[in-house]
Amino acid sequence: MAGEFELIARHFTRAGRPAAPGVVLGVGDDCALLAPAPGQQLAVSTDVLVEGRHFLSTVAPERLGHKALAVNLSDLAACGAAPLAFTLSLSLPRGDDAFAEGLARGLFALADAHGIALVGGDTTAGPLTIGITVLGQVPPGQALLRSGARAGDRLWVSGRLGDARLALEVFRGRVALPGEDFEAVRRAMELPQPRVALGLALRGVATAAIDLSDGLVGDLGHVLARSGVGATVAVDRIPRSPILAAQAPSLQHTCVLAGGDDYELLFTAPAAQDEAVRAAGARAGVAVAPIGHIEAEPGLRLVDDAGRPVAFAERGFDHFA
Amino acid sequence: MAGEFELIARHFTRAGRPAAPGVVLGVGDDCALLAPAPGQQLAVSTDVLVEGRHFLSTVAPERLGHKALAVNLSDLAACGAAPLAFTLSLSLPRGDDAFAEGLARGLFALADAHGIALVGGDTTAGPLTIGITVLGQVPPGQALLRSGARAGDRLWVSGRLGDARLALEVFRGRVALPGEDFEAVRRAMELPQPRVALGLALRGVATAAIDLSDGLVGDLGHVLARSGVGATVAVDRIPRSPILAAQAPSLQHTCVLAGGDDYELLFTAPAAQDEAVRAAGARAGVAVAPIGHIEAEPGLRLVDDAGRPVAFAERGFDHFA
Repeated sequence: MAGEFELIARHFTRAGRPAAPGVVLGVGDDCALLAPAPGQQLAVSTDVLVEGRHFLSTVAPERLGHKALAVNLSDLAACGAAPLAFTLSLSLPRGDDAFAEGLARGLFALADAHGIALVGGDTTAGPLTIGITVLGQVPPGQALLRSGARAGDRLWVSGRLGDARLALEVFRGRVALPGEDFEAVRRAMELPQPRVALGLALRGVATAAIDLSDGLVGDLGHVLARSGVGATVAVDRIPRSPILAAQAPSLQHTCVLAGGDDYELLFTAPAAQDEAVRAAGARAGVAVAPIGHIEAEPGLRLVDDAGRPVAFAERGFDHFA
Repeated sequence: MAGEFELIARHFTRAGRPAAPGVVLGVGDDCALLAPAPGQQLAVSTDVLVEGRHFLSTVAPERLGHKALAVNLSDLAACGAAPLAFTLSLSLPRGDDAFAEGLARGLFALADAHGIALVGGDTTAGPLTIGITVLGQVPPGQALLRSGARAGDRLWVSGRLGDARLALEVFRGRVALPGEDFEAVRRAMELPQPRVALGLALRGVATAAIDLSDGLVGDLGHVLARSGVGATVAVDRIPRSPILAAQAPSLQHTCVLAGGDDYELLFTAPAAQDEAVRAAGARAGVAVAPIGHIEAEPGLRLVDDAGRPVAFAERGFDHFA
């Protein structure tokens, strides 16, 4: 690599740091070597963030570094897997050393918070693109899959939905918010918190799970299709922030049903597990709310608090739209 | 994803195929699930190929698909790891369906040859970039590392070096070759064969190994630095094709010493293991040749067949040069 570019790449090398648990050999050889705990299965997921498509150029580099790893950890959370390590494929415009430094800071702060190490990577010059493959571990048979939802299960969601989409609408100039409110929803968009602890706490409790990246309607659709079931969702019960709750009803519906970038967990559990679900949320320090139930009849039915159908034509959030 | 782009992404989805060994759950959930063999360590490596930097736009898509996976498998080979699975992060210019189809064909042909499955991926629109993370397994303590070379070890290389660089020189217009010869060296550049079987056969035999991606001088330098040793290399003994051997001596030196893109294995073994090394090569079906030896004195000394110093100023192949 050329000198200048090598300097940039060094922000992503942390030689001499104590290895994370499970890492036998880190960056620096042809391969890294990991030792998962005995008998565990390995969970693998890959996500790429491309500037202008998955994030706006207005995002601070440190927040971008956080988000790039967060969306991958969110996939592990949705499987109930414990994070183990990650690799990074970074394409950076040449020469922007301050940007790379900020990106690395945000990335490693979240990695450290989850006790995982960067075990491989590749840095090239090019349009800003951040590709991460994350590895986790889960005992055989305990992974939370999209296919496990059963008729009669209750449908739950963690946290609050829709603020990230509301922030996007502000950036698009379609909504105006007071500065403080804008900063709050912008944080939701730029600093999502992967629900890893909740995913772990839901092992043996939830029957199915998915993380919300493309909007509730679209992502729930994946669970219903994989599980061969249908669902009714009480739209008014979907948790949202006071800021979003103050917006027009149609905008609220767009944001909570097809928002995208929520990175909360949507999951199902038998009604007999209500207490266990609430205990899991408490243990993980995140609110969980029942928003509907799974039914044998295929399809998704949206209803209001009085049980009347709610019309909603949008599909999931489309990064390419 | 948009409709047209989704169609392209489907070339990289092979739902319903029998899962590869070790794959519990393939593409389609939040994570894939792998079950490495009991007690094995996991080897992980990541490489990204960017158009114009790591490959020329003249390469056929099928060959590009092959090469993108081959350079990653080559890292597993260098560690003596058995391939297990891989993930793909693909950035493709919008709409080029035929290109995507060819790329997928080349990629999966090599994956099938090694019995491994694609277990995760992400396809985005953008400048052509292929990022792969490959996972393999190796028994604890048996991985071949760069750090294991010891004074007195013999230095070996597999296959023939320099043809890929010779092809690049033809593309650059600096060398002219007859059509048949050009096709032969072009194959070396575009269809490298990862030495996975050799890497496995060298477990317990070789003391150190690396795959040659940036040229012998540069890559050997990594082994010497990590192992805290030096080496003498008999330049005339570095195997090369009759096509390269017919070129001017200075071009031959450039190609075999700083060629880049060889994807052969460079490795060390005690002289007492000469027979075992040759047997490993025979078992793997690839030629192995002794080209020098490891010494306690730091530094790299290049000599000719009469033992006289060979002057060579170039460093490794620089993709950014």
